[in-house]
Amino acid sequence: MSSTMAVARSLRRTNPITLVLAGLLSIGFLIFIFSSTDAGPKLHVPGARQLLKSKDAASNALSPPSLPFFKSNLKAGEKAPPPPVVHYHMNNVTNSADPIGNRESVLILTPLARFYEEYWTNLVALNYPHELISLGFIIPKGREGNAATAQLQEQIARTQSSSKRFASITILRQEDEPPLTSQSEHDRHAMSAQKERRAAMSRARNALLFTTLGPTTSWVLWLDSDIVETPHSLIQDLAAFDKPIIVPNCFQRFYDKEKGAMDVRPYDFNSWIDSNTAQNLASKMGPDEILLEGYAEMATYRSLMAYMSHPGGNPKDIVNLDGVGGTALLVKGDVHRDGAMFPPFPFYHLIETEGFAKMAKRLGWSSWGVPNYFVYHYNE
Amino acid sequence: MSSTMAVARSLRRTNPITLVLAGLLSIGFLIFIFSSTDAGPKLHVPGARQLLKSKDAASNALSPPSLPFFKSNLKAGEKAPPPPVVHYHMNNVTNSADPIGNRESVLILTPLARFYEEYWTNLVALNYPHELISLGFIIPKGREGNAATAQLQEQIARTQSSSKRFASITILRQEDEPPLTSQSEHDRHAMSAQKERRAAMSRARNALLFTTLGPTTSWVLWLDSDIVETPHSLIQDLAAFDKPIIVPNCFQRFYDKEKGAMDVRPYDFNSWIDSNTAQNLASKMGPDEILLEGYAEMATYRSLMAYMSHPGGNPKDIVNLDGVGGTALLVKGDVHRDGAMFPPFPFYHLIETEGFAKMAKRLGWSSWGVPNYFVYHYNE
Repeated sequence: MSSTMAVARSLRRTNPITLVLAGLLSIGFLIFIFSSTDAGPKLHVPGARQLLKSKDAASNALSPPSLPFFKSNLKAGEKAPPPPVVHYHMNNVTNSADPIGNRESVLILTPLARFYEEYWTNLVALNYPHELISLGFIIPKGREGNAATAQLQEQIARTQSSSKRFASITILRQEDEPPLTSQSEHDRHAMSAQKERRAAMSRARNALLFTTLGPTTSWVLWLDSDIVETPHSLIQDLAAFDKPIIVPNCFQRFYDKEKGAMDVRPYDFNSWIDSNTAQNLASKMGPDEILLEGYAEMATYRSLMAYMSHPGGNPKDIVNLDGVGGTALLVKGDVHRDGAMFPPFPFYHLIETEGFAKMAKRLGWSSWGVPNYFVYHYNE
Repeated sequence: MSSTMAVARSLRRTNPITLVLAGLLSIGFLIFIFSSTDAGPKLHVPGARQLLKSKDAASNALSPPSLPFFKSNLKAGEKAPPPPVVHYHMNNVTNSADPIGNRESVLILTPLARFYEEYWTNLVALNYPHELISLGFIIPKGREGNAATAQLQEQIARTQSSSKRFASITILRQEDEPPLTSQSEHDRHAMSAQKERRAAMSRARNALLFTTLGPTTSWVLWLDSDIVETPHSLIQDLAAFDKPIIVPNCFQRFYDKEKGAMDVRPYDFNSWIDSNTAQNLASKMGPDEILLEGYAEMATYRSLMAYMSHPGGNPKDIVNLDGVGGTALLVKGDVHRDGAMFPPFPFYHLIETEGFAKMAKRLGWSSWGVPNYFVYHYNE
């Protein structure tokens, strides 16, 4: 049912109070392949080996997500020149229906516990201009996280030395290792495990968001690490609707033994239109209880976007939603800058991406779904 | 009563839905005056004039708050070298009782509408190592904002070319001008004006926070632009308590005509311990109503930190709080990275800094006050 099981495994029972960012990898300085003789400024890019020798690099709190902080290398007694003052004229930080035409920057954020090559292949195949795309990952500490980081770095090295390279890439490593938990106990309380898992996921999303969002980020695309197939034009297709928050339908390909053929089925049930039943359930709940979608013992009778698609349906039809899933989710930068985050605590009895939609609504931003536009989840 | 009247004036009735960041000034690249011959990496720092010629500078969404984005300057047909991969080992992003000893980075954030020279003088006099301090400002559009920006830039130019310079400075200009409002109407509904004003302030704080916080920010010091006097050791004094959120007592100096001498009086009433009366009031409120402190028609009987100080009181005494003011407020980076922001909407019938304390509590972080440790507000 959950759309992020791979991450769930590692984030489950991460102690969120002590969540501290533990590692940062920032890559990608030379982006604009600018093959003219324009007299722009030159940046001397030192090798990684050199940088690691400088233990004070990146001491500046503001620099890490983008560029490492370089200390000046002055001779003894030499006085540093005054820091340059740069004024950016940002009147054109738009988020429009024509993001490519307006050269709008996109930040793709992915909480990652398992690395799937199909995820990376699909990401690299996105045909939104890569020089306008920055990537951000948050990865748990521990063996699985280390393995995922190693695989990710291998692919990054390949992609970033090719013509497909992205503007910049940030990797945050969480400091604490997810404690081992008794799986059987969790199985017995699947719903409470869901709450805990999604609270940890919320904190991970927030840490990633708060530390990578910039003043010039036009769009944030949340893309789970187990999304292995999307249209190549995903970003511009969703942006074209010009909505504050918009979510495609997340399905899964599977082999239908009866038919003896591949087929698709709904996967993410977190995108929905609210119901009176759910509202009534919520009104009787204690302050720390949450509504969850997809449990027989908690029938909400919400209208699920998962069931709104139909063969030959128009991929341009949209529907106003009250809850959204986060497997693939396009958000205007302004929505996040206004303060919309992923509540790890029950917010109107909702958490994580569903709570995010509610919080955005409280901030005056609406959520929309595209029932006949599909992305596909990994099938384990 | 309000601690941020100067900003209030300009932010009042800012249309928050369309709040877009409009300007960014980022300064300060050469920080560590490193007068040895250590073989660290070299950064070629071009002059501001040169940078402004490069119209694609800072197109990278992640770069602006810290360093401008430099495009590479390749000859025609020349292939760009692969972007370097830099791995930061961030296990030591601490926020400890000894922030100077541990070289912890501090981000000072200030919503600014009026520029007071006393604010800047006090800021520059802080004796926390300036190379560990980054500054962030958000300034409304319009005449007052322009004037404040000009004054700020003048002081920045002076400070940043001196030995007192800060690690980096980010200035965000809001895109929309605050619409003109009928002052008389607002006077008649002072409480509703407060709500609107503080909602706009919350959005400004969030935009500033979300776009400047980095993965290595150990502490965030919120410091209002009308705080004109603090102990020079403010940061390390407050950090020494090693609390997630800690607030000093905000007073105001004034001339007492009766006594014919200067005296002090409480100024900020937003730091408090909750009361049953306030809880009961809240329980009878509609979902969009908020509790406000300091109105006779809404007596909350909360215990206000403003009244907890006493002559000769120990400046090391602390008290656990439920609401905090934001005139001066030290927050561990982890608290914000977890998702704690300033709710512009009623959150448990609280907004802005008071709502922030409640949200932090929901995230598991506690708030503390120091009744006998003072900062002083401008007296108009």
